Amino acid sequence: MVVAANRVEHTEDRGSIDTIVSVTKRDMARVNELILSMAGSRVELIPEIANHLISSGGKRLRPMLTIATALAHGYDEGDAQVKLAASVEFMHTATLLHDDVVDESDLRRGKRTARTIWGNQASVLVGDYLLGQAFKMMVDVGSMTALSILSDASAIIAEGEVWQLAAAKRMTTSEADYLAVVDAKTAALFAAAAEVGPVIAGAGDEARAAMRRYGRSLGVSFQLIDDVLDYGGVAADLGKNTGDDFREGKITLPVILAYQAGDEDEKAFWRSAMEDGNNDDAALARALELIERHATLKTTIERARAFGAEAYEAAAGLPPSAARDALLDVVEFCISRIK
Amino acid sequence: MVVAANRVEHTEDRGSIDTIVSVTKRDMARVNELILSMAGSRVELIPEIANHLISSGGKRLRPMLTIATALAHGYDEGDAQVKLAASVEFMHTATLLHDDVVDESDLRRGKRTARTIWGNQASVLVGDYLLGQAFKMMVDVGSMTALSILSDASAIIAEGEVWQLAAAKRMTTSEADYLAVVDAKTAALFAAAAEVGPVIAGAGDEARAAMRRYGRSLGVSFQLIDDVLDYGGVAADLGKNTGDDFREGKITLPVILAYQAGDEDEKAFWRSAMEDGNNDDAALARALELIERHATLKTTIERARAFGAEAYEAAAGLPPSAARDALLDVVEFCISRIK
Repeated sequence: MVVAANRVEHTEDRGSIDTIVSVTKRDMARVNELILSMAGSRVELIPEIANHLISSGGKRLRPMLTIATALAHGYDEGDAQVKLAASVEFMHTATLLHDDVVDESDLRRGKRTARTIWGNQASVLVGDYLLGQAFKMMVDVGSMTALSILSDASAIIAEGEVWQLAAAKRMTTSEADYLAVVDAKTAALFAAAAEVGPVIAGAGDEARAAMRRYGRSLGVSFQLIDDVLDYGGVAADLGKNTGDDFREGKITLPVILAYQAGDEDEKAFWRSAMEDGNNDDAALARALELIERHATLKTTIERARAFGAEAYEAAAGLPPSAARDALLDVVEFCISRIK
Repeated sequence: MVVAANRVEHTEDRGSIDTIVSVTKRDMARVNELILSMAGSRVELIPEIANHLISSGGKRLRPMLTIATALAHGYDEGDAQVKLAASVEFMHTATLLHDDVVDESDLRRGKRTARTIWGNQASVLVGDYLLGQAFKMMVDVGSMTALSILSDASAIIAEGEVWQLAAAKRMTTSEADYLAVVDAKTAALFAAAAEVGPVIAGAGDEARAAMRRYGRSLGVSFQLIDDVLDYGGVAADLGKNTGDDFREGKITLPVILAYQAGDEDEKAFWRSAMEDGNNDDAALARALELIERHATLKTTIERARAFGAEAYEAAAGLPPSAARDALLDVVEFCISRIK
């Protein structure tokens, strides 16, 4: 644990997504083909909308996790990993389509969102279609265990979204509350994506639990770094602008920590900005100043590093292989996005 | 077929839903319990919204079909039928939640829709949650065949909805186009609900195909009668007002047939009403007059009877049992809603 934590702390300059891209390259080519084919339909609007998102330059980290964790457990043939990886990406895409409707977002990864081009209605329904197709692919694999893991994740993700909608727009949200939402909204799919790899490889319960822990911790770490990038840092690869979360009233960890550390004046500012929508450029400038004053980006990065260290440790126990190295490098990549 | 058709034609006064309610009573009590429990969540908003719809007086015809077709094939123990029936109802409820968002509907079964009380966002996400819970229950049953049937239905329903959104708002929609949408949007879930009964009972392919045909034809018949009721007839049990479809610009069979039979003036009226939204009370009065002039409710009822006869025939081949009689009576009930 100490070793792992130290390693994470000292490798900001070397973490790279290239290792996992390279290790999963052969299978990801098949995943991408399958995605295109399963996003097809006699109803033209479906591939039109699906491909808008699918081709919008996401890194496809989640399906790569499925491929890499399958490889790391010796599953190197067949097509179960390809179908499950495509399912995972469809679940993610469906979530994004619905998220953009719920958040009324106009931009994602620097491109107009599907809902601004084709409308909320089509975004909801195409999301439903992709989810249906995801389940069809899982059924096709024929592993009841994998189905159980992924259907659990599906319900947990939606539950987390409703929770966030219902309660998380209040500045009284605690760090624990927020981490519970991140756990459901983001980490649950990372965890499921990483766990189904060993499942189809026929690995035992311990291996499954380790990969689940890996995916979950990686997911939380990933989200916290995203939160930090939204208030600064180098975010070119995210297609996000500084302050997007702020303007959408999304309460994230840097804000929660700044609120908690603030005096009464500052607390009133945060409530007005996040709860009542007083979030113009001047308000963003003040928000950045308060975040700087209380060094909450630094604290958030520390939290992210701690989760990263857990993920690192979970994968470090794997037998040596290129896939294991790729899984370890992904952890470092997530953290090293912060310059 | 002739016998079946004749029987359907002459029994408008006796079709009743009471038989299937009585036959499925024991299991439906368990289905209702399971529904309440699976609609639960630590996030209070979820049961609040789910129960609004679940307790809004729907007949629960779809889950009753699963119970009755399982019973008709000798499955009388265990809980697979209960879990699958609850899954079917959740899939239906999720579809209604999303439908009301997509159609911007304010009323359903005479009650305010969830979206008008809790908003579109919560309706989308709670629908997603119920769909996830539906898949969890299916996985719990452990039948890959049942999972395959229901996940197929899930994708087909969404595909049908997108199709309707994209193309079916034009008056050039043909009867065949419309029936294809009904087949996907409504009949696919009826078909799946009826098919999984024999599947868990371990019945053979022929029995499965017959029940699938039964559910599908019943579903089309059911929808066409709904379409008729929207332009008149006795609709007390539907919570719909005459002209709801008209005001929402939903092009249904009575309208398609009236358009096709109309002269240029009438065609222009329909285009203006359905495509451009000129659908005030005066327009509705004219629509009713044209529907009457071309007797398109009568023609639609004839179509519904023909599908009903197919459903009747498919179930008539079952060995005699109370469940078989219940399935036959449901067909007559659907048609006999027209006085």
